[in-house]
Amino acid sequence: MTSSIRLPTIVAALAITATVSVRAQQDSPQETPAKREIRAVLDKQVEAWNRKDLISFMRGYWNSPNLTFYSGVTKTCGWQATLDRYRKRYQSEGREMGALDFSELQIEMLGPKSAFVRGKWHLKMTTGDVGGLFTLILRQFPAGWKIIHDHTQSSP
Amino acid sequence: MTSSIRLPTIVAALAITATVSVRAQQDSPQETPAKREIRAVLDKQVEAWNRKDLISFMRGYWNSPNLTFYSGVTKTCGWQATLDRYRKRYQSEGREMGALDFSELQIEMLGPKSAFVRGKWHLKMTTGDVGGLFTLILRQFPAGWKIIHDHTQSSP
Repeated sequence: MTSSIRLPTIVAALAITATVSVRAQQDSPQETPAKREIRAVLDKQVEAWNRKDLISFMRGYWNSPNLTFYSGVTKTCGWQATLDRYRKRYQSEGREMGALDFSELQIEMLGPKSAFVRGKWHLKMTTGDVGGLFTLILRQFPAGWKIIHDHTQSSP
Repeated sequence: MTSSIRLPTIVAALAITATVSVRAQQDSPQETPAKREIRAVLDKQVEAWNRKDLISFMRGYWNSPNLTFYSGVTKTCGWQATLDRYRKRYQSEGREMGALDFSELQIEMLGPKSAFVRGKWHLKMTTGDVGGLFTLILRQFPAGWKIIHDHTQSSP
């Protein structure tokens, strides 16, 4: 290898490094691209919920019969059953969706294509606020990061 | 490479394959060594609990201030605080540990050194049984597989 090949390679590497570090600073310091993508999935879920768009909210979940959702003593299996549970609980007669927010999010990688998220959810309702702790397991699929298991606790 | 080298290699490979498959069948069919190790951690926890040995039970958890334990609305952080919580809840005046069992365990790998477990716990108590669903996140450390996050739900 001659120096005429080496120099452009070094310049290109420096340019890439500079671009990546500027982008990282713009988005969130110290957060990896994978974590930012996961955070974006959750942000989109909150936005979808708050415009009462349950189908878009459900895009954060793995569309599979193997998705699991634990809440209280109830184990819900599958994407469709999870959607049905949300519809019954928040969109049926006399129910309201309220205003959702997540807080205290801790995103932790478990492998190059897997992660878990600890956090708190809060729903501002006219009938009194509800909220609780949650644990989410996510995997990266070709279609992006999806929640494959949700353990959510509810408390008034 | 000559056939005189290739043949012993093939024989050795077949012998290893046969040994591995016999061992897998003896332990639990279709279960990888990592999953068997994780199952053993949980089995040891149950045995320790049932002989009222909380310190041995706690060996299943990551001995770190970063261990997290979610139960109800309470977030407990750290190994020592988790032990203290168990002591207060199950070994203080008027409390009992009961007889523990886990069921419906689903162990799923999330990377070569990480996994999560979904399951149900049940405590047989003289004052009435309790139990619920749990989600555990485990990582493999030099000292073996340890629970780094426990989300446990309790219901009478």
